[in-house]
Amino acid sequence: MNDSFRGARVVITGGLGFVGSNLARRLVECNAEVTLVDSLIPEYGGNLFSVAGIEDRVKINIADVRDPHSTDYLVQRQDFLFNLAGQTSHVDSMQEPETDLEINCRAQLSILEACRRRNPKIKIVFASTRQIYGQPDYLPVDENHALRPVDVNGINKMAGEWYHILYNNVYGIRACALRLTNTIGPRMRVKDARQTFLGVWIRLLIEGKPFEVWDGSQLRDLTYVDDAVDAFLLAAQSDEANGKVFNLGGGPVVSLKQLADLLIEVNGSGEYVTREFPPERKRIDIGDYYGSFERIRSCLGWEPKVPLREGLSRTIAFYRQHLNHYL
Amino acid sequence: MNDSFRGARVVITGGLGFVGSNLARRLVECNAEVTLVDSLIPEYGGNLFSVAGIEDRVKINIADVRDPHSTDYLVQRQDFLFNLAGQTSHVDSMQEPETDLEINCRAQLSILEACRRRNPKIKIVFASTRQIYGQPDYLPVDENHALRPVDVNGINKMAGEWYHILYNNVYGIRACALRLTNTIGPRMRVKDARQTFLGVWIRLLIEGKPFEVWDGSQLRDLTYVDDAVDAFLLAAQSDEANGKVFNLGGGPVVSLKQLADLLIEVNGSGEYVTREFPPERKRIDIGDYYGSFERIRSCLGWEPKVPLREGLSRTIAFYRQHLNHYL
Repeated sequence: MNDSFRGARVVITGGLGFVGSNLARRLVECNAEVTLVDSLIPEYGGNLFSVAGIEDRVKINIADVRDPHSTDYLVQRQDFLFNLAGQTSHVDSMQEPETDLEINCRAQLSILEACRRRNPKIKIVFASTRQIYGQPDYLPVDENHALRPVDVNGINKMAGEWYHILYNNVYGIRACALRLTNTIGPRMRVKDARQTFLGVWIRLLIEGKPFEVWDGSQLRDLTYVDDAVDAFLLAAQSDEANGKVFNLGGGPVVSLKQLADLLIEVNGSGEYVTREFPPERKRIDIGDYYGSFERIRSCLGWEPKVPLREGLSRTIAFYRQHLNHYL
Repeated sequence: MNDSFRGARVVITGGLGFVGSNLARRLVECNAEVTLVDSLIPEYGGNLFSVAGIEDRVKINIADVRDPHSTDYLVQRQDFLFNLAGQTSHVDSMQEPETDLEINCRAQLSILEACRRRNPKIKIVFASTRQIYGQPDYLPVDENHALRPVDVNGINKMAGEWYHILYNNVYGIRACALRLTNTIGPRMRVKDARQTFLGVWIRLLIEGKPFEVWDGSQLRDLTYVDDAVDAFLLAAQSDEANGKVFNLGGGPVVSLKQLADLLIEVNGSGEYVTREFPPERKRIDIGDYYGSFERIRSCLGWEPKVPLREGLSRTIAFYRQHLNHYL
């Protein structure tokens, strides 16, 4: 895989974020020419420390994807666009629905319009989310499952994903989407639960404080970030992927309580308290979720390689060393 | 039914449009207090002539639903909101996707936010569209059919519909959506094909010019506007409808060629030419479509009453008399 990105011009929106920065690191190893676009809005996932050590090998361009003028320029002369910028907080999307719409819908449309006008030969991989399925009818959820988002974020991400597929189908701008499930690993946001509940668990664990597990019975699957990066690269390289959506996943399926126990076991110490769901979360909760990643396995040969325990161990090790940069 | 709207305060967005003005006429008969909100943008469906004869019995408020300030005021003190304002042209949505997004997504969210903040007891009926299904997997299409919109308009209407269902489910703001199929009748836009292909057919027929039938083999179902109005009123009255989406429909299913022949037969004269699909339409075409309206029949007791031939006859009669007001 490494060779196919050598010298390729790659732009990553949300490039200073969790998945974006891990993807950037891999692409730098592949000798790609990488431009990272990020707004560095404090409430979102961007963090300059996440590119520590590769700063001189990437171009960092601070811009917000809601700004169509910078977008219009930045997609030009690029071979690949990894389109990862997004508002990820479900609760925030209910409290500020128009902000979520601006980022997750309108900016996506303007990115695609920029590609159509300026660079229709670009290949786009879009970071979508399993949130758009809503409460599953059946498990594991595959890509044919109905989309019934339960929060504003889910609706807007669904629209954003469809714009990509539409531009592929109508204009031939090669695009596909990965529906990410909970992704974990170094460089995730741990300051709060805006990106993933696990971030704040790990932060509190390392700070020696008890973390909160809400309910605890819900089932989840998790993808280690290096595996997610693999999926983005495979999807970018494959014309088989064009116009398609793919679930990511990972095993084993765990309840939140099992996950909390495993986290403490891997860490060697720690404690948590079980709480009722806060009402503002309960009303947008999706219940149990785990996905089937059979489509991406058969179409692109992807499968998760990093076991959950190993992923948690690497993540804890990273934040033991670098927590101060993420607070 | 008439009694249940007596004295009710009702606001209709898109109230000077095709369905909106027909709905307004019925509500005036029911002695409702009716406010019509419309932007009267020339490219859209609003037309002051459509409320000729009831001008003094409705309140006409010229405002664009993209203006959150007027929306915030106008939803207050209302019992019912019939939310019909929308950009309806599929081709326009591809040429100006952000305009479509502003009207069909963002304005919808701001209308719902206004209701949440100012008038959470309001009941909302949203005008959605069968366009969100995309190319059908099976016929007739029921509400469980996957949503796979094939144009920007379809994506944005899908999001707009979901916002309504979400605000019903999360905030208890009673809302439901009707997925309209081709609707025909007096006061539809006939100047061009922005609202419905049938409008421009009827215009040319009355002007004694040949109209164009593209391809001609595609199957469609059509709803006469009085039947659509029935559905809006039934949905508004019923708490059974809350949180649900309903297809409308109508029989018989016809090919476009059969419809063209029937139109000429009803008119007593006329001619058409069959053409290939223009490319900008072909790439967003949905193929054959007709829907099942079993859900609204069993849940709300709705069914279409006006036969297709009768609907065409009434429509032609209206435009023979009033065509000049719609050019």
